[in-house]
Amino acid sequence: MNEAPARDLPSSERTRVRRVAQRAHYDRATLEAIVDAAHVCHVAFADEQGVHCIPTACWRDGDHLYIHGSNGSRMLKLAAAGAQVCVSITHLDGLVLARSAFNHSMNYRSAMIYGCFEVVPEARQGAVLDVFLEQLAPGRSREARPGNAKELAATTVLRIGFDEVATKVRQGGPKDDEDDLGLPVWAGVLPLGVARGAPIVEAAPDGAPAYVRDWERVVLA
Amino acid sequence: MNEAPARDLPSSERTRVRRVAQRAHYDRATLEAIVDAAHVCHVAFADEQGVHCIPTACWRDGDHLYIHGSNGSRMLKLAAAGAQVCVSITHLDGLVLARSAFNHSMNYRSAMIYGCFEVVPEARQGAVLDVFLEQLAPGRSREARPGNAKELAATTVLRIGFDEVATKVRQGGPKDDEDDLGLPVWAGVLPLGVARGAPIVEAAPDGAPAYVRDWERVVLA
Repeated sequence: MNEAPARDLPSSERTRVRRVAQRAHYDRATLEAIVDAAHVCHVAFADEQGVHCIPTACWRDGDHLYIHGSNGSRMLKLAAAGAQVCVSITHLDGLVLARSAFNHSMNYRSAMIYGCFEVVPEARQGAVLDVFLEQLAPGRSREARPGNAKELAATTVLRIGFDEVATKVRQGGPKDDEDDLGLPVWAGVLPLGVARGAPIVEAAPDGAPAYVRDWERVVLA
Repeated sequence: MNEAPARDLPSSERTRVRRVAQRAHYDRATLEAIVDAAHVCHVAFADEQGVHCIPTACWRDGDHLYIHGSNGSRMLKLAAAGAQVCVSITHLDGLVLARSAFNHSMNYRSAMIYGCFEVVPEARQGAVLDVFLEQLAPGRSREARPGNAKELAATTVLRIGFDEVATKVRQGGPKDDEDDLGLPVWAGVLPLGVARGAPIVEAAPDGAPAYVRDWERVVLA
């Protein structure tokens, strides 16, 4: 099989990957896998003080990436007002140790989303925030006390579509120069992933739900 | 003991944390711990196409954060030419599950560095890149084939000082409203950290060095 990779994401001059272009992917499945594995993104935007790069929680629902926060947040106010942004999500999957210093690399999966956020209307906020909570802890949106009118009114929820997106992935072992292959140097990959540690209990009046009992594990790409 | 926190980092109007300001730290030790735990940062900058947010490998040596890459990189070319940047480093340490949906949170450590990169002269590049390799794998700069003149000439190394920096840290358990403390809802923290997976060997002509043998482990904050 030598299928051409899917190219089902809209691209643009801005999202065409130039450096090491064979690592670029323009398909929706790659994008969704990268986004869905993330709890946090970095949002870059500019104001009169210059360029900023702010980490914030994120989640996907269908065709949009969502972020949220206090109405008082500078980033959310600017983004709600239509500021151009670049949202970046990165997973570091390993250190790639080559026989030559120059050919050392890292394995990663990254996504960049360009465009503008739009405001999620207050009437839709509760449902959209429930989706977020369910992704973090399935069932919890029916356990925790729901947001009341005052809490929802203090919260801004924004979403951005996948209209101008690029993803880039490096995986696999080192790419050494032919001349270096015989050198007596250890070569390979030191994998990196996510560790979920033992839950820290503050209160468990009805015992621990499944998402707590099953939390602890190692997640490698 | 109720010592005032150290404030030994220069701050500015741009780096004064406004949202949840009690999470802000302006001391050098906090900054160094956040930077030294990271292999990757996000660099935000702007050009005629808008704002960009690019992940790249990073390391600290003394008073500077370093990045590097191919001379052909757009980001490195712009940064070398003096573009204003915001560099962001974020570690996600856990999901904080409160009794109310609204008070859910995340534990994290983050740093933002504003300013401009400067170019590391070619004569210093080899030494600076050795520091990077030593931090990833102690001893490896004496094992791997060093960069030759052609490889170093194709590489740009940049550094930025800690002149305009902010860090923000959230740790600990949920902060529930008094009225919610009696609700029958599990409350606590689901910790997140870094998992180092079993090394993937491509070649081990002389066996595995210590940084490979000792690699596999879980690192929690």
